[in-house]
Amino acid sequence: MKKTIRIDMDTLAISHDPATDDIRHIGGRALTSGIIAREVPPNCDPLGRDNKIVLAPGVLTGSSAPCSGRLSMGAKSPLTGGIKESNVGGTAGRIMASMGIKALIIQGKSTQKERFILEISNDNIKLTSAEPIEQKDNYSAAKYLTEQYGNKTPYILVGPGGEAGLPLATVAVSDMDGRPTRHAGRGGLGAVLASKGIKAIVLSGKGPLLAPKNTESFKETRKAFAKELSTGKQALTKFGTAVLVNVINEAGALPVNNFRKGRFDQVKNISGEVLADNCQARGGKTGHGCHPGCVIKCSNVYHDKEGNHLTSALEYETIALLGCNCGLSDMDQIAELDFMCDNYGLDTMETGVALGVAMEGGLLEFGDFNGMKELITGMVQGTLTGRLLGQGALVTGKTLGVTRIPTVKGQALSAYDPRALKGTAATYATSPMGADHTAGNCLPGRTGLDDRSPKGQVAASKEAQKLTMLCDLLGLCIFVGPIPQTLPTMTQLFNDFLGMNHTEEEMLAMAEKVLLEEVQFNEKAGITKYQNDLPEFFRTETLHSDLVCDLPAEELMNIYN
Amino acid sequence: MKKTIRIDMDTLAISHDPATDDIRHIGGRALTSGIIAREVPPNCDPLGRDNKIVLAPGVLTGSSAPCSGRLSMGAKSPLTGGIKESNVGGTAGRIMASMGIKALIIQGKSTQKERFILEISNDNIKLTSAEPIEQKDNYSAAKYLTEQYGNKTPYILVGPGGEAGLPLATVAVSDMDGRPTRHAGRGGLGAVLASKGIKAIVLSGKGPLLAPKNTESFKETRKAFAKELSTGKQALTKFGTAVLVNVINEAGALPVNNFRKGRFDQVKNISGEVLADNCQARGGKTGHGCHPGCVIKCSNVYHDKEGNHLTSALEYETIALLGCNCGLSDMDQIAELDFMCDNYGLDTMETGVALGVAMEGGLLEFGDFNGMKELITGMVQGTLTGRLLGQGALVTGKTLGVTRIPTVKGQALSAYDPRALKGTAATYATSPMGADHTAGNCLPGRTGLDDRSPKGQVAASKEAQKLTMLCDLLGLCIFVGPIPQTLPTMTQLFNDFLGMNHTEEEMLAMAEKVLLEEVQFNEKAGITKYQNDLPEFFRTETLHSDLVCDLPAEELMNIYN
Repeated sequence: MKKTIRIDMDTLAISHDPATDDIRHIGGRALTSGIIAREVPPNCDPLGRDNKIVLAPGVLTGSSAPCSGRLSMGAKSPLTGGIKESNVGGTAGRIMASMGIKALIIQGKSTQKERFILEISNDNIKLTSAEPIEQKDNYSAAKYLTEQYGNKTPYILVGPGGEAGLPLATVAVSDMDGRPTRHAGRGGLGAVLASKGIKAIVLSGKGPLLAPKNTESFKETRKAFAKELSTGKQALTKFGTAVLVNVINEAGALPVNNFRKGRFDQVKNISGEVLADNCQARGGKTGHGCHPGCVIKCSNVYHDKEGNHLTSALEYETIALLGCNCGLSDMDQIAELDFMCDNYGLDTMETGVALGVAMEGGLLEFGDFNGMKELITGMVQGTLTGRLLGQGALVTGKTLGVTRIPTVKGQALSAYDPRALKGTAATYATSPMGADHTAGNCLPGRTGLDDRSPKGQVAASKEAQKLTMLCDLLGLCIFVGPIPQTLPTMTQLFNDFLGMNHTEEEMLAMAEKVLLEEVQFNEKAGITKYQNDLPEFFRTETLHSDLVCDLPAEELMNIYN
Repeated sequence: MKKTIRIDMDTLAISHDPATDDIRHIGGRALTSGIIAREVPPNCDPLGRDNKIVLAPGVLTGSSAPCSGRLSMGAKSPLTGGIKESNVGGTAGRIMASMGIKALIIQGKSTQKERFILEISNDNIKLTSAEPIEQKDNYSAAKYLTEQYGNKTPYILVGPGGEAGLPLATVAVSDMDGRPTRHAGRGGLGAVLASKGIKAIVLSGKGPLLAPKNTESFKETRKAFAKELSTGKQALTKFGTAVLVNVINEAGALPVNNFRKGRFDQVKNISGEVLADNCQARGGKTGHGCHPGCVIKCSNVYHDKEGNHLTSALEYETIALLGCNCGLSDMDQIAELDFMCDNYGLDTMETGVALGVAMEGGLLEFGDFNGMKELITGMVQGTLTGRLLGQGALVTGKTLGVTRIPTVKGQALSAYDPRALKGTAATYATSPMGADHTAGNCLPGRTGLDDRSPKGQVAASKEAQKLTMLCDLLGLCIFVGPIPQTLPTMTQLFNDFLGMNHTEEEMLAMAEKVLLEEVQFNEKAGITKYQNDLPEFFRTETLHSDLVCDLPAEELMNIYN
């Protein structure tokens, strides 16, 4: 039975929304954004009583479709002030779906000081005191949760960053090893969940894989798709997403020293090869799946020189933004910072960009590893500099008087310089999510356009945003490729699973409808089409001596008109 | 000859816009907001190349109409992100008008590091290096300017706060004594002017009083009006605007300790009577006119105990917000803080509210006078805490994790608790200017409504905003009273001066048209009707045990629909 669970933190009342058929064939981002758009006042304080946070597995999450373990989380973002969806792998999504939960809505705000653990089992939902883990870092809290609830029990967890109300705080989800390393990273959803009074959610129920309506056809499609993915994505399996370090450096789009340069002279020290070598030599691992049913397995387990666990899931964007964007070129140092961010529940991207901006503003030197550690620790200890950085790159930069602040709609760019990768630049500028590559990344060569020419990029970005939306609502990892070639497979899986008969056009229309809901929410929240642009310095300051952002402003503005 | 001067700081080119008849009968805020709305991209960086700052005397500025010396300044605000007009008395407006200048538009951004002094005489306009006064405080810079250009020469001046790019920086204008004590205070226009590369504007020209078209009728009307004002506003003349301390305390709307209370137990120490007594006993002065032709003379010159000049123009809002709102009850201490703000070019209101929020956030104690001085100095010295406070109350509060932040649209409330004065509350919530009492203040008893009841307040505020707009476009000080009873006189003065034949309804329609232009600019800039509300805590936290802000959200939202 499909169900929607609603937790009202004002009264600690738990209810089930009436099961309606209309949510049967939506899920993931379509459900989180739809509920937020319908139920949340666009002008509300993101950390106040009127915001809500919605967790929803994708349509295919919990099925045997490959790479379909994503769990979407949505709210009004304390970072952008607009609607936000951030989705995550790990073990929680599949269990939620298997337990028949379409959406978990948490609303209101506990008037009690204590925080709660929300435990959801098959036949019971309860709130218990989180006192033993309040203010605890994620690894310590995770240890407690696995001890209390079993080491295979998926959890969803807010770190001290979220408890401190920082708008760059993440929501962590358990990985396959029970570690808190999968993060709904962007937009400060950790601060929203904590503001409600929730420290952790434990999913102690069970359930079978969800059965498709058209069993045989679904089985065939998913098998072919799994084969295609496991053979076609071997670089990701072998080197992790860090395979992109060299690719993006080659494309000249690797952010260095707060987006001053697009290539890093010490790139060989932070490449995917280094990552894979270190993992192999020290007893770590690449080819680590982040959720059951993943066939790409781009995650990794990274050990230090002594062979002890240092961090898991060291990603390209983290390496670029906490690494070369801050003048760091030592993979072990970057891994340590990644661990700190995971442990405190901080978005590595927003943190990296905020640190880069702080370096530009003179708060510390580029490459000052110890200074970075001190500032990251200060974020959760509540030092003034820490709290400032914790507001994200925009507030940090403005306060320090920096004019080169790489943000759109209040959110830091991820690890692709927009001047050298103009499809992604268009996504940064136009996505209702703010500058977020996961909303429609156009990697080098992917669109068939000249990545450095503005021509056709806005249209290509819009297509990528729609295809990405399909991944996000289906619960598919974007590494299956939100590209036109994947559309037939996504359509087939959707139709077979639900017994529907959508055309590809109808699938795209469904995706666009959700995007428009998001755009409309944002308009009311004060993010209008006029904010569809990149910061001025990308338009005036050249990269590689001749590249600027020259996307037509009118096209960016009118992408969703 | 009416003229518009345009200074392009990109090229340092000076040009005159073609003199068109359509600007003949507009001025002040109608002209600044009209030009900003037409020429400035709503999404531009307020401190970037694309913003413009416009200075325009009111329609009647430069005439013999009483209290008509106001000079409007307008730009996209770095504080609110929306359109801003802030008008100011002092000696500059009348001279600009007498020289035939309808508007001065400063655009672009100097690529040179040096700042400039813009000198405008009757037959020449030139830019010279501001090197001798760069980074100098306002009193020092003013001394230089009066020595160089003559002690009666009006000037317009940016302090170190503006040079530091702080979004609460003011533009100072010379008073009748040549001191930099009249400030276009709100919305950070000082940072905008400095960002263009301008440190000071000197008006070394001359010109006669502007002659009205209908000489006799104008003369009669202005004489009667002057008589009415000089007899009807004697409390303002005698006690300055500080007369409001007791009035607003009595009404229960005096902000105390970051709007925690509405009455101050030490109110007798900071009243208008204390101000007047100190002025008289120490060789200062009340009844000091801020510009030629003022008949109300609400300004003052305040000396210290030794009889030395301490500050000029110590206003009610400063006393309330830097005083009791921060737990201070010593008039001399408040006067010293007022001087510091004037000298550095900082809005005393935004500064007071930001300090109150910082006190609530634990950065310093309420009543910590030395701590306040240190933070204010830090704003221009560039300490991190100073720079943080310099971003205004909202950023300060968010960074410190404060939930009670008294701002609307990013701008601090002025010195009237909205729970006890609901007409002003409606203006705070709905004005395109953000929380700004000068956009339509509904003082106790003024509207004829119960000031504590929500009934009719939105309509009353809208009327006050239109009448205030008429003052602002005519160049009349709002102390002439933007009330229905003044409308016939304002209409008569306008018609006689220009030889027009507007009805009162047409006057109000003209005002509303400008308000709508401002609203429309804001919508594009991301300030929509959904932001027409007060912070949540005013709706949930009682004042005097039973007062909350209970203005209907729908009415606030649709005031300009």
